[in-house]
Amino acid sequence: MSNQILYGGDYNPEQWPREVWDQDYPAFDLAGLTTVTLGVFAWAHLQPAEERYDFSTLDAIVERATAEGRSIVLATPSGAMPPWLARAYPDACRVDFEGRRHVYGQRHNHCPSSPAFQRLSVALASRLAQRYGDNPAIVAWHVGNEYGGACYCSSCAAAFRVWLRERYTTLDRLNEAWNATFWSHTFTDWAQIQPPSMLSEHWRGPNHTAFQSITLDYRRFLSDALLGGFLAEKAAIRAHVPDTPVTTNLMGLYQPVDYHRWAEHLDLATWDNYPPEDASPIRTAARMALAHGAMRGLRGGAPFWVMEQTPSTTASRDVNAVKRPGVLGLWTWQSVAHGADATLFFQLRQSRGACEKYHGAVLDHAGRTDTRVFREVAALGAQLASLGDATLGARTPARVALLLDWDSWWAAEMSDGPNRNVRYLDVLGGYHRALWHLNALVDVVPVTADLTSYDVVVAPLLHLVKGDLAARVRAVVERGGTFLTTFLSGRVDEDDNAFLADAPGPFRDLLGLRVEETDAQQPSVVNPVTLDGVVHEARHVFEVVVPDEGTTVLATYGADFYAGTPAVTRASVGDGEAWYVATMLDDGGVAAVVRRVLARHGLVGPHADDAGVEVVDRVSPDGVLHRFVLHHGAEPITVTSQVAGTDLLTGRVLAVGDPLTLSTTEVLVLS
Amino acid sequence: MSNQILYGGDYNPEQWPREVWDQDYPAFDLAGLTTVTLGVFAWAHLQPAEERYDFSTLDAIVERATAEGRSIVLATPSGAMPPWLARAYPDACRVDFEGRRHVYGQRHNHCPSSPAFQRLSVALASRLAQRYGDNPAIVAWHVGNEYGGACYCSSCAAAFRVWLRERYTTLDRLNEAWNATFWSHTFTDWAQIQPPSMLSEHWRGPNHTAFQSITLDYRRFLSDALLGGFLAEKAAIRAHVPDTPVTTNLMGLYQPVDYHRWAEHLDLATWDNYPPEDASPIRTAARMALAHGAMRGLRGGAPFWVMEQTPSTTASRDVNAVKRPGVLGLWTWQSVAHGADATLFFQLRQSRGACEKYHGAVLDHAGRTDTRVFREVAALGAQLASLGDATLGARTPARVALLLDWDSWWAAEMSDGPNRNVRYLDVLGGYHRALWHLNALVDVVPVTADLTSYDVVVAPLLHLVKGDLAARVRAVVERGGTFLTTFLSGRVDEDDNAFLADAPGPFRDLLGLRVEETDAQQPSVVNPVTLDGVVHEARHVFEVVVPDEGTTVLATYGADFYAGTPAVTRASVGDGEAWYVATMLDDGGVAAVVRRVLARHGLVGPHADDAGVEVVDRVSPDGVLHRFVLHHGAEPITVTSQVAGTDLLTGRVLAVGDPLTLSTTEVLVLS
Amino acid sequence: MSNQILYGGDYNPEQWPREVWDQDYPAFDLAGLTTVTLGVFAWAHLQPAEERYDFSTLDAIVERATAEGRSIVLATPSGAMPPWLARAYPDACRVDFEGRRHVYGQRHNHCPSSPAFQRLSVALASRLAQRYGDNPAIVAWHVGNEYGGACYCSSCAAAFRVWLRERYTTLDRLNEAWNATFWSHTFTDWAQIQPPSMLSEHWRGPNHTAFQSITLDYRRFLSDALLGGFLAEKAAIRAHVPDTPVTTNLMGLYQPVDYHRWAEHLDLATWDNYPPEDASPIRTAARMALAHGAMRGLRGGAPFWVMEQTPSTTASRDVNAVKRPGVLGLWTWQSVAHGADATLFFQLRQSRGACEKYHGAVLDHAGRTDTRVFREVAALGAQLASLGDATLGARTPARVALLLDWDSWWAAEMSDGPNRNVRYLDVLGGYHRALWHLNALVDVVPVTADLTSYDVVVAPLLHLVKGDLAARVRAVVERGGTFLTTFLSGRVDEDDNAFLADAPGPFRDLLGLRVEETDAQQPSVVNPVTLDGVVHEARHVFEVVVPDEGTTVLATYGADFYAGTPAVTRASVGDGEAWYVATMLDDGGVAAVVRRVLARHGLVGPHADDAGVEVVDRVSPDGVLHRFVLHHGAEPITVTSQVAGTDLLTGRVLAVGDPLTLSTTEVLVLS
Repeated sequence: MSNQILYGGDYNPEQWPREVWDQDYPAFDLAGLTTVTLGVFAWAHLQPAEERYDFSTLDAIVERATAEGRSIVLATPSGAMPPWLARAYPDACRVDFEGRRHVYGQRHNHCPSSPAFQRLSVALASRLAQRYGDNPAIVAWHVGNEYGGACYCSSCAAAFRVWLRERYTTLDRLNEAWNATFWSHTFTDWAQIQPPSMLSEHWRGPNHTAFQSITLDYRRFLSDALLGGFLAEKAAIRAHVPDTPVTTNLMGLYQPVDYHRWAEHLDLATWDNYPPEDASPIRTAARMALAHGAMRGLRGGAPFWVMEQTPSTTASRDVNAVKRPGVLGLWTWQSVAHGADATLFFQLRQSRGACEKYHGAVLDHAGRTDTRVFREVAALGAQLASLGDATLGARTPARVALLLDWDSWWAAEMSDGPNRNVRYLDVLGGYHRALWHLNALVDVVPVTADLTSYDVVVAPLLHLVKGDLAARVRAVVERGGTFLTTFLSGRVDEDDNAFLADAPGPFRDLLGLRVEETDAQQPSVVNPVTLDGVVHEARHVFEVVVPDEGTTVLATYGADFYAGTPAVTRASVGDGEAWYVATMLDDGGVAAVVRRVLARHGLVGPHADDAGVEVVDRVSPDGVLHRFVLHHGAEPITVTSQVAGTDLLTGRVLAVGDPLTLSTTEVLVLS
Repeated sequence: MSNQILYGGDYNPEQWPREVWDQDYPAFDLAGLTTVTLGVFAWAHLQPAEERYDFSTLDAIVERATAEGRSIVLATPSGAMPPWLARAYPDACRVDFEGRRHVYGQRHNHCPSSPAFQRLSVALASRLAQRYGDNPAIVAWHVGNEYGGACYCSSCAAAFRVWLRERYTTLDRLNEAWNATFWSHTFTDWAQIQPPSMLSEHWRGPNHTAFQSITLDYRRFLSDALLGGFLAEKAAIRAHVPDTPVTTNLMGLYQPVDYHRWAEHLDLATWDNYPPEDASPIRTAARMALAHGAMRGLRGGAPFWVMEQTPSTTASRDVNAVKRPGVLGLWTWQSVAHGADATLFFQLRQSRGACEKYHGAVLDHAGRTDTRVFREVAALGAQLASLGDATLGARTPARVALLLDWDSWWAAEMSDGPNRNVRYLDVLGGYHRALWHLNALVDVVPVTADLTSYDVVVAPLLHLVKGDLAARVRAVVERGGTFLTTFLSGRVDEDDNAFLADAPGPFRDLLGLRVEETDAQQPSVVNPVTLDGVVHEARHVFEVVVPDEGTTVLATYGADFYAGTPAVTRASVGDGEAWYVATMLDDGGVAAVVRRVLARHGLVGPHADDAGVEVVDRVSPDGVLHRFVLHHGAEPITVTSQVAGTDLLTGRVLAVGDPLTLSTTEVLVLS
Repeated sequence: MSNQILYGGDYNPEQWPREVWDQDYPAFDLAGLTTVTLGVFAWAHLQPAEERYDFSTLDAIVERATAEGRSIVLATPSGAMPPWLARAYPDACRVDFEGRRHVYGQRHNHCPSSPAFQRLSVALASRLAQRYGDNPAIVAWHVGNEYGGACYCSSCAAAFRVWLRERYTTLDRLNEAWNATFWSHTFTDWAQIQPPSMLSEHWRGPNHTAFQSITLDYRRFLSDALLGGFLAEKAAIRAHVPDTPVTTNLMGLYQPVDYHRWAEHLDLATWDNYPPEDASPIRTAARMALAHGAMRGLRGGAPFWVMEQTPSTTASRDVNAVKRPGVLGLWTWQSVAHGADATLFFQLRQSRGACEKYHGAVLDHAGRTDTRVFREVAALGAQLASLGDATLGARTPARVALLLDWDSWWAAEMSDGPNRNVRYLDVLGGYHRALWHLNALVDVVPVTADLTSYDVVVAPLLHLVKGDLAARVRAVVERGGTFLTTFLSGRVDEDDNAFLADAPGPFRDLLGLRVEETDAQQPSVVNPVTLDGVVHEARHVFEVVVPDEGTTVLATYGADFYAGTPAVTRASVGDGEAWYVATMLDDGGVAAVVRRVLARHGLVGPHADDAGVEVVDRVSPDGVLHRFVLHHGAEPITVTSQVAGTDLLTGRVLAVGDPLTLSTTEVLVLS
């Protein structure tokens, strides 16, 4: 492995005539690209028929990359099965949510319960590992690609029943978990259980189900079933490759797969950073920070890799803008600031045909190296090389935990009532954005995480509460920390059954209140909420809260029949505090609440009031702190510096109090 | 039966541990709840396997309710089949409009033509009747639940062909009725006939069909097929229960089922009142009044029951608001004002899990009796108890008939041309709202109703005209009454074939005009129509009318090439009048027309100009008139009373001319 | 054939009792209707069972029409199969894009690859030709009806594979054409190939495909498969009918069928003119002119027929307006101006039932001849009769070619990236509208057309470039002509693979530039582009262009990071010019570009600055020029005449410079 942040990306020379290969590596050198990801989607040419393997092309590619001194990420090709497989084993294709058996096409399309697919994908992974496992240029094994989607076939139905039997042991326990007496759903034979789809429990779509608990379990099952495929390939690789990390490329905040169920099985967290277009570049930056945090949170704060990002455009959106000048560098450095030890592109040479032919690449269709995009890639390559190994292995010294929970995400969005317009990521993202604007260092962690090292625990829309979380949260508060949660939290148990108690269930006593009613209104309805003399807008959900004696009411509703009742409360428990926000506040309201919470612990970061200026710290294994300053604003900004150090990118020395002008997309790496 | 308006609701203690049961009845007493509806959706625990029945739990529940002195509404559980049934008989599940066979899930999901479902549902109804039929606490039998939906399976196809053979006897008559020569549709074998679905005659959805007459017949068939299930269970009950009324809970203005085809088979009309959110509380109140009227119209004006309403929120909408303070009482009294002799909740205790866990209930998840909702339920219980039997059996002395016709509803909305934006309920509701604002007493009746007792007959958008209706309408006019109808009425016969004559067909001579052209425009296009000097807005459909000599033109179009031609006309026939409104007027325009019609007969009610003040009369069997005054407005209002009597709820005596202040949601029951 | 423009329309007396027939012909005489189209959709009564034919009704109809002296267009009825056929041969019904096998219903619903359908439709066509082929009243044979739609059944899959084998010979060549290495799609057996549908390569819909080249080939295949049905029936007719033209009714700018693949097989181009509602009557007129041009372009400029138009309303839109007074005449004369030698209605008598019962007709449900619509039809009939044969066979002396290309239409709209909001017809229509407003005479031609007779060639959004087009375009320029093309042109080859070269590929050198980046933005984003001092708005796609030395930059972007770079360029090549428009300009911007191009060649027509005044020329076989002046504006207009001649409709003599007042919908035919 080269001793710097890995830089490179997906490279599929098998899609090109060999004469083109000779143009590629000199261009890679020009751009400082150290790393190639090989073999993704190469199944058809590695195994042109069930009984025939042909590694000659891959041999040549690997040899060339090795000879050129690149680091190699070697993929198994199971992200896209070949046509012969689908034809020989039709049940390797999925049955979709509408109940339709698919035939060959696209990618990411295999049934995770298909015995044929399992057998063939593992066999190929095994051969690859056997053949290339001792090549020291290989820095990681990359299994499959962007695991996701769903299948509802009879194989999956059977596998689901096995999964359920393991989870519940008996039908009585399953029926109780599923509240099956409702609507006569008592199952008396495992075989009666159907995957929840448009042909059974659903209407309108995946979030509209008659039985939330069945759908919840099916999502858990599907996540585990996909994981099973990964694990089987990983085991096949491990039989030949003792040490090299084995991973797969995740997709950040991707709802269908619970990455927390996967985390312990990944030697390394990697993900593909294609941020959805947001209302502004600053919001997009916040959104990426949240996703980086979630990925870093998978393995206890260890560095992750960005396995894919585009040098310029995506092609799959309705409207595909190019990345503005400087954005590629800015976003890449942001990923490093949040914990990336590798930053790779999809892809190095632009596809000729099919649905990605307009996806951006380092080299365009004409193979030019005199384009704006190539120049930016090369300039970034030079910067990364100059940084060397300074940040490799560094970690984020966060004292704030933001709880991310797939179960709550699923449960909140599939609930009938109170309000379909409340989306989990909107609420989670709103609280994260407030923390991010204040340049607080935040870990985005699962509800099972060890909370003992945090001063502040923020749990937006934690609808489903499981395990001993409530006790661990109480411990944070009792030792002087602050807990902050919101409306619709603490409502249901792990089976999505309501707690037979006052809401918010397990947090009720800690928070010192009960929720008596939950009103919901159309998006146009605003209820003004005054906090510290400032009026904020609340929308969507309005809980009518009855505070316990001693609970402090910090803000109240200004309208409707519950005007004057609490909208934000704080209970003091020992030296700690437990905050509750009973409605969906606008950004300003959330920011005001979060700032008060952070301020109590001295956790408001530098440049918290300079819009668009992100400051992030990483501490290297040798204890050296690197402070990244990134400017996401659309205009240059001049501030009085609240940070100090030597910028590793330019050598400039900066002291606190210096005037600091940041141009658009500017980045400092202070040390 | 207790000697007051029945009060209570759905109660499913089988979904709870027995210790919870002991908390329930004391709470019910506290709230004055006299009635429990038992056994809805209990199939799985009553019959855990095809050959095994287990009534032990229901026995305990019925015994307890009986011992507590409650009235019982006992349900058959056929609204939700158990898993074993679907697994043993896959064809008990439906094939949907898209042609997909469903598997087990949800509820209201059985194929009405499935022999297995028919046999098993009837067998269970029979056993229930045999076991509990002589329990005097049972005040009604409740078969199934909210019949609805559609099936397109081969069993239904076969049953449809039998139904058609009964209707048409020969294929020649069927082909003529269906105008089958068009697009080569001449059927030469009954077996060639397919249910009209997305796989045959439809595109885009249920209202887009190539052959309106086929789709119309299939809707009639489906309504009859569902009715067949009800009748089979009813017959099984009647074999053991000679007198207790047998009914099912309807859904008000529910398009898929023609309740007029059901009416004669119901011993009692009952319905579930979940009003869709409308533009304002006053419009919602008008909409409920229309639905109450339609339900009262099913059985010649006899009192009906509200079988379900929510104490607080629904859970099934995208956004689910709580009922504001006082609304529960206001709406309940409105139902009584319009003819309800029972008012029941869904449900008494809130579900733990699945899709109704956030649906409002008398007792919440914590079982509290100190909530706002419980207090309102209890206060209402006390009022109902104090009223006693005063209104039981009372009828509405209406002199206005509003014609409601499922065939026209279906035909108008599935028509290709002139305008898909015209919705039947919008037009019907518009004319009803005008009558309601004027506090006219209105019967909402089928086109087959005896019209001899009415002074005014209003027939909005009566697109399809069948039977001897035109002659009966003429008789109303000839004896001095008034007939009022609108654009797009009188266009097609019972088979949805155009009358081969000037529009509006059978009404043409009575109305004294012919429609030469029918223009349609986008919703943004307004044509000003002046009536009595006031300009109203017309939209959507603009018929170009040629009046006969002697027909009075009351209003004309103000724009387009037909400016100056008639928009509203009146023909005098003997002592009566026949009015025609050739376009879709706004609310003000409809109100002006309706007021003139009512005024002629002295049928404008009290407080007609006080917005939000509804006045409704019921006359008890002993001749006593009860006059309900309800205030739906969002603000208190002070008026000079146009009504008099003693308020049975407060004892206050009111005289005409007294100042009368009505607070929001206030109700008077004057006698 | 009567010696005038054919006038009449679809006539289906078999749908009516015979007594009605006697009313029809006198009415047709009153209106001057010379022509009847018979037998469309008559399959069920011509062949009531597979083994039984019955021509008695058609005999009577044909005899009556012949006796009345009408011209007859005789149809084969294959546009709607009878019920017995679908029942006997279920695979004659289609499998839709969702994978669902349909059953009997609607029309235009046969699988083009069904052997049974092919055999039976050809057999019936053969019998019709044998029976009626020598009737001299028959002026054309009309095969099927409005061919269109798609099928994805196994028969079509098999036929697709045969079609592919003919196209590519080997799988290696197919895999290369499809860029199959991408996503492991290498096919190793023809049987592995699946039709691209929602069950294979597609998501969201027909324009969202993982493999554009597969979908492109399937569209070509489907177009050819439908053509195969036409050709088989035509051959059967030709066996008995040596000379009478055989045709079918096309649908103008209908995306699913590539009419250029059909053109050589049609003896006569005919089409059904139902213009979609556009933003204004003038835009609708332009749209019809484009479609007329496209139809005239099918057969090298030969006259075409309007086989259908409605006298008043359609019935199939959501909102169906009547044609305003005079519009019927205006639009009919527009069709004649653009090359129609026949103008026919759908239909002569209004349907009684089913989905067209509200579609306009010459005779309404009451059979009246005293309606506005009938009067306009009759007045138009008198005008057409008075014109006689003056324009029959006349041609349009155009010097501008507008390239229309189904492959580019398909490829541009199914592309992933850069922008789904760019629609081919919007771009093509925008350039056509600019030409039309300037009253330039334009031929709308395929990319294979001979370009030697044109001064100007306009190629908007010519995404896919095939064959020797680039060379022929270069020849136009080299001899002094002008070529104009736009953003996203010249991107892919016939297989939808990107040219491995600078964009715009084959046009790059001629245009003197390369496109380095392609930015795309949401519809709300406007970039101002200044041309000749006027600021125009650009949207959607913004190419960043690097001009060659010597290329003239005519306009630049005003905003974003590419502000100041070229938006419109012109390269001079010999005496000619090659223009490039790198973004989607608004109408004003396109008009400015087009006017400059036309002006250079003196091709701006008369009244180019009088909005709504269309001037079109046709030259008769004897060399006489007819100049049509049509006023589409909503208000009367008075101008100084730029045209001269005698109006054949009124006899008025007009000289250049005369004052000319045109009322709304007024038409002059000057000679």
